Amino acid sequence: MTTDRPTLGIAMIGHAFMGAAHSQAWRSAARFFDLPAEPVMQVVAGRDAARAAEAAARLGWRESTDDWRTVLHRDDIDIVDICTPGDSHAEIAIAALAAGKHVLCEKPLANSVAEAEQMTAAAESAYGQGARAMVGFTYRRVPAVALARKLVDEGRIGQIRHVRAQYLQDWIADPDAPFSWRLDKARAGSGALGDIGAHIIDLTQHITGSRIEEVSGRLETFVKERPVAAADGSGGLGGGAAGSERRHVTVDDAASFLAGFAGGAMGVFEATRFATGRKNAIRIEVNGSDGSIAFDFEDMNVLEFYDAGEPSQTAGFRRILVTEPEHPYVGAWWPAGHGLGYEHGFTHQVVDLVTAIGAGEQPRPSFADGLQVQRVLDAVEHSSQTRSWQSVPD
Amino acid sequence: MTTDRPTLGIAMIGHAFMGAAHSQAWRSAARFFDLPAEPVMQVVAGRDAARAAEAAARLGWRESTDDWRTVLHRDDIDIVDICTPGDSHAEIAIAALAAGKHVLCEKPLANSVAEAEQMTAAAESAYGQGARAMVGFTYRRVPAVALARKLVDEGRIGQIRHVRAQYLQDWIADPDAPFSWRLDKARAGSGALGDIGAHIIDLTQHITGSRIEEVSGRLETFVKERPVAAADGSGGLGGGAAGSERRHVTVDDAASFLAGFAGGAMGVFEATRFATGRKNAIRIEVNGSDGSIAFDFEDMNVLEFYDAGEPSQTAGFRRILVTEPEHPYVGAWWPAGHGLGYEHGFTHQVVDLVTAIGAGEQPRPSFADGLQVQRVLDAVEHSSQTRSWQSVPD
Amino acid sequence: MTTDRPTLGIAMIGHAFMGAAHSQAWRSAARFFDLPAEPVMQVVAGRDAARAAEAAARLGWRESTDDWRTVLHRDDIDIVDICTPGDSHAEIAIAALAAGKHVLCEKPLANSVAEAEQMTAAAESAYGQGARAMVGFTYRRVPAVALARKLVDEGRIGQIRHVRAQYLQDWIADPDAPFSWRLDKARAGSGALGDIGAHIIDLTQHITGSRIEEVSGRLETFVKERPVAAADGSGGLGGGAAGSERRHVTVDDAASFLAGFAGGAMGVFEATRFATGRKNAIRIEVNGSDGSIAFDFEDMNVLEFYDAGEPSQTAGFRRILVTEPEHPYVGAWWPAGHGLGYEHGFTHQVVDLVTAIGAGEQPRPSFADGLQVQRVLDAVEHSSQTRSWQSVPD
Amino acid sequence: MTTDRPTLGIAMIGHAFMGAAHSQAWRSAARFFDLPAEPVMQVVAGRDAARAAEAAARLGWRESTDDWRTVLHRDDIDIVDICTPGDSHAEIAIAALAAGKHVLCEKPLANSVAEAEQMTAAAESAYGQGARAMVGFTYRRVPAVALARKLVDEGRIGQIRHVRAQYLQDWIADPDAPFSWRLDKARAGSGALGDIGAHIIDLTQHITGSRIEEVSGRLETFVKERPVAAADGSGGLGGGAAGSERRHVTVDDAASFLAGFAGGAMGVFEATRFATGRKNAIRIEVNGSDGSIAFDFEDMNVLEFYDAGEPSQTAGFRRILVTEPEHPYVGAWWPAGHGLGYEHGFTHQVVDLVTAIGAGEQPRPSFADGLQVQRVLDAVEHSSQTRSWQSVPD
Repeated sequence: MTTDRPTLGIAMIGHAFMGAAHSQAWRSAARFFDLPAEPVMQVVAGRDAARAAEAAARLGWRESTDDWRTVLHRDDIDIVDICTPGDSHAEIAIAALAAGKHVLCEKPLANSVAEAEQMTAAAESAYGQGARAMVGFTYRRVPAVALARKLVDEGRIGQIRHVRAQYLQDWIADPDAPFSWRLDKARAGSGALGDIGAHIIDLTQHITGSRIEEVSGRLETFVKERPVAAADGSGGLGGGAAGSERRHVTVDDAASFLAGFAGGAMGVFEATRFATGRKNAIRIEVNGSDGSIAFDFEDMNVLEFYDAGEPSQTAGFRRILVTEPEHPYVGAWWPAGHGLGYEHGFTHQVVDLVTAIGAGEQPRPSFADGLQVQRVLDAVEHSSQTRSWQSVPD
Repeated sequence: MTTDRPTLGIAMIGHAFMGAAHSQAWRSAARFFDLPAEPVMQVVAGRDAARAAEAAARLGWRESTDDWRTVLHRDDIDIVDICTPGDSHAEIAIAALAAGKHVLCEKPLANSVAEAEQMTAAAESAYGQGARAMVGFTYRRVPAVALARKLVDEGRIGQIRHVRAQYLQDWIADPDAPFSWRLDKARAGSGALGDIGAHIIDLTQHITGSRIEEVSGRLETFVKERPVAAADGSGGLGGGAAGSERRHVTVDDAASFLAGFAGGAMGVFEATRFATGRKNAIRIEVNGSDGSIAFDFEDMNVLEFYDAGEPSQTAGFRRILVTEPEHPYVGAWWPAGHGLGYEHGFTHQVVDLVTAIGAGEQPRPSFADGLQVQRVLDAVEHSSQTRSWQSVPD
Repeated sequence: MTTDRPTLGIAMIGHAFMGAAHSQAWRSAARFFDLPAEPVMQVVAGRDAARAAEAAARLGWRESTDDWRTVLHRDDIDIVDICTPGDSHAEIAIAALAAGKHVLCEKPLANSVAEAEQMTAAAESAYGQGARAMVGFTYRRVPAVALARKLVDEGRIGQIRHVRAQYLQDWIADPDAPFSWRLDKARAGSGALGDIGAHIIDLTQHITGSRIEEVSGRLETFVKERPVAAADGSGGLGGGAAGSERRHVTVDDAASFLAGFAGGAMGVFEATRFATGRKNAIRIEVNGSDGSIAFDFEDMNVLEFYDAGEPSQTAGFRRILVTEPEHPYVGAWWPAGHGLGYEHGFTHQVVDLVTAIGAGEQPRPSFADGLQVQRVLDAVEHSSQTRSWQSVPD
Repeated sequence: MTTDRPTLGIAMIGHAFMGAAHSQAWRSAARFFDLPAEPVMQVVAGRDAARAAEAAARLGWRESTDDWRTVLHRDDIDIVDICTPGDSHAEIAIAALAAGKHVLCEKPLANSVAEAEQMTAAAESAYGQGARAMVGFTYRRVPAVALARKLVDEGRIGQIRHVRAQYLQDWIADPDAPFSWRLDKARAGSGALGDIGAHIIDLTQHITGSRIEEVSGRLETFVKERPVAAADGSGGLGGGAAGSERRHVTVDDAASFLAGFAGGAMGVFEATRFATGRKNAIRIEVNGSDGSIAFDFEDMNVLEFYDAGEPSQTAGFRRILVTEPEHPYVGAWWPAGHGLGYEHGFTHQVVDLVTAIGAGEQPRPSFADGLQVQRVLDAVEHSSQTRSWQSVPD
């Protein structure tokens, strides 16, 4: 295969669940979209040399390393793609930006507002040097979500009154599900709130184009301690057989909060890993003066849309199958009615990042966007502790 | 038609929307269910003699009156059925109970906790004299809701972790929709919170068998004043053409609140008249350690049920069409698959009330149950004012 | 209750499942709709005096009789409502029309084309004498179905290409379900084909305004004999405990057929009592050059509508909740979002019949309409025997 | 990247829509599944050298050629993947098998039974030489479909009574949609019947494990001629601007047929490109004595399942989200609730083919399976011409 395009060398740090999704995106983006540069999957970095080598072979990278710092000095690396748990985001991202690399960082941006502020400052500083930084709120790039935003932008929803958003999973509803790094505050930063609540905060602000200004929240840890699996260094969602040792869960199992949006909309949010039977239900509904939209990731190729301007006789929520060439991102893929899957959002993320780099523009969501989400998360956590409303700093 | 059963004379106070629903229930109950006594639709009372007479003819009552007090002294009246706005509930109910009549009172029980306390005291006092009092949280008697409660009672859901409930309407989402008595705090007591929020408070407590202990709420009035229609004495949902006069809306357009249930479940509630495209969407989802249930009144003959004990391969939310002879109330009606409608809940309410009267038992929900809902409403309102969590008194 | 309206005395022949539905309709119609005359539930007739008397008391009729002929000579009877099995329709209807009574006859019109022809001739002859005859294809009057027809009439669907219709039940899917009169060709005429297939033939022709001209069909009897219940004289759907005696099933368990409509649409039909898990799924989908409609009785308050004129970005099947005041029949009932049930179609049938009688017009579907359905049924049966396409006579 | 696995060199003939889907599958399979050999995307062949070269660059192949015959003699080619229109399948497949190559051939196997018989003979002859042949009925490998088959195999559905299947598209419902090679009998063999009807014939026989023995069918061409686009050599679904020239449509726009399955089940089938609003709705429902399953590709990650053994109280169709590790193919991808898309079926096809080659086994569906589908298609076409039932030869 030959192309006339320039290439972009990619180094990916971390190779668990997120690494697999990112790898498929790097591999696929230029095959379906017309990119200004061809990504080259150069090197994957992990903590353990053997496992990193195995990941490189399995995920399709040319090389591997157990020292992520080495990639910062390589001329054949243009983009550092951070897929590690949140506790290492700040260190890696700041170093990579300082080395002049573009950075794609998985969400949440960091485990604390302080770290996120440092990262944002680093990104703003590096911007002048030509390095671009982006945070991976991938669900923005599900076509149905992108269409939702477009309809809001076009004024089809009117003045927004209500935002209701839920991110429902059930993978630890069983009290005997084993401990995982995602239940350890030191590594994960927070539980359902930061892991999945962050997504619906970003999504609703993105779709509505409006910021959350204040929150009243409540966090719960239903199961206080859990069995420790024999070996869980995988960075995965958990797994492994449970032993007799038990460990304290230091993060929230579930979070709920009310929100006030700039512009006056009321928000109601819920993020939980205890919604038995709901596997990855990201549900967002927005009601406005002129229409409504509703989305559920468990039926991800569909956006429901209600047009209040329609005569009563034929008004109703439309089940838009977001698979038409006219829909965001969709034209590059298959004919109408042939749906996309979870990883396509990651491919679209690569497309948007590489396109922005090619155009010399700021890819979105920026680190500043990621910081703002972090501030909402922080306000929810404080609100839960103080049992009062908390405003979200600008 | 002849029956050997005794009769129960009914007087209905008020004859608008609720009066029509109650009339159909009184007319139908003994035709489908085996009741200990035959209701006789004796008299309907209204404020205006001519309109009351018209209502009697239209709704099928033998007589009419413009003085509700007269029915209290009639020997042929056994049950007083109160279908007026909330500001007159206390006066009528207390008088009727004092006169030895059974009382069925529409929800919310009253416009204030104080009134509801007086009514509850009156009901408890009258109980010893043989009079029975019941509040009309009719949606409990939708078969799918009754099945939900039954599944919880049977332990199919296990320990309850999450309760999410929404009551979504859109009939005043248009800022030019006219003023109605339901937007006047003096008559209606509250807005979306008391009118429809009361239903989901009752329903979730009923289904889970667990009380709401504390709340953090937020009320909003999106549209502060509205045009006044030419004549709106109908007691209906609104209606009439808008004139140039405008009136201040003194109730909430929408309410949202977080709740803590006894037993530890987290609750998230939302009641609004501004959910564009949602007409009467009473949505309740309960997630427990052993299963989940979900209900939406816009598809009222269905209960969704997830059984966590099912093997992964075939686990999934079941769409139970609640029309089988084995389902609550259903056997009296039609064959499987032939759904019921909105007013059937009122017929079931009559069935349960007449059955309880016949058995000398306390019908549920009692006035004490209605008072407790009122206390939750009151706590939400206070919480919205104080911007802090409020506990709900026992 | 007093009204200035004239009255219409009703005699109902038969008092099983259909009798209960018809009774509720006669009782309710004038309470919700403005009728030219007030129906009076005078007398119910049955084969057994004691059971007829019990039915009168239960269903709310003034009197009962075990001789249906007696009602033909009563001056206080204006309408004869035939709710018996199909083998007695012709005799009763022809006698009633000859006696100058209006007739409402349950579907299918008769058990044979010959009988249906005689009935139609009788109806046409009686029409000049002022008697009106109507056949009870009630599902036409489900508001969502009436809306479907209206959309076709208004040209929203354009030229119709496809009609697919299924009537799916499962009440005898169990081979041990007992024998019932509905499985006896002598009484029921046919099985799934005539009982439920007749409905989807009528519905699709009604909605599309187009006749079925030819068919290729296949009938099956999956279970050839069944246990006989201890006593099954109920005229109901079956029931009773199974004994050791077994009886041959002489009707079809399921029917499927292809159809050619006048105008060129292709039809695909299926009627069965063996669709495990489907309780009363009347599903109709119509695809035209300008739009499509889809209906499922198991979600009876909804009509799905696709408008091909909508831009691709927002095109999708709309879930129209057919509960708005603008929708057919709905304004007389409850506010938006408060759904109707199975028996409301019967009430609408009474409304349309009484209105037509008041206006001196021909109510639809007429006996001629019922005859035409009978001819389609007959052609399907012949086609199944001859294994070839059969045309349907005009 | 290094692996110890052997490699399999792939040559792909044709590079339109199907070529893009196959390319993504060859690229992805070894990244997610543990294969016995690593596919290497060597060469793509097309009729035009420049366009083939462009396709190679875009789709990620090492080389291109405008002479497919050259690949047969290359030692670095192990598998020939045929993605051309049906009129060239026989020639290419027979030559490739004769050259000792494994063959993957897109469906339908050929444009006639005669060609399919030759291909099947060639495949059987080559089998002894170690070459394997497979036909691409990809939808078998959608996880929900694979689960459906598994449930039938496990006896969860019992004796099958009904099969209803529809493949509904609408891409030429507009009479002005341009002519395409898919509307030309000489190239495409047939229209909706062979293009999409073939899929539901294969799927239903695969899921039920039962063959179609006889059919009664009807084909229609609603729009007899269409405008010719300026240039349509793309081999795509159509496209291009319409000119004034018009061309006769020589294939069917829609097909419907009744079917008798071995074992006694009744089948009802419909395939059309005129179902306005349906984009790629492959709907399959199977009803058996013990349960039912239902699938719709427009919600492709879901299988509905009804278990007749469940007590009435909680029986209902379960919406199984087929994204659990226990589900077919799914464990290799993402966590529960993270759905797959259209092209994943092609990846699974590659997995199954490479696995079978590695094990020396016959991959399924074999050419014999493809031939049998061709015979059903042929019987439907004859039935439509003769207007009578046709049996399907063994």
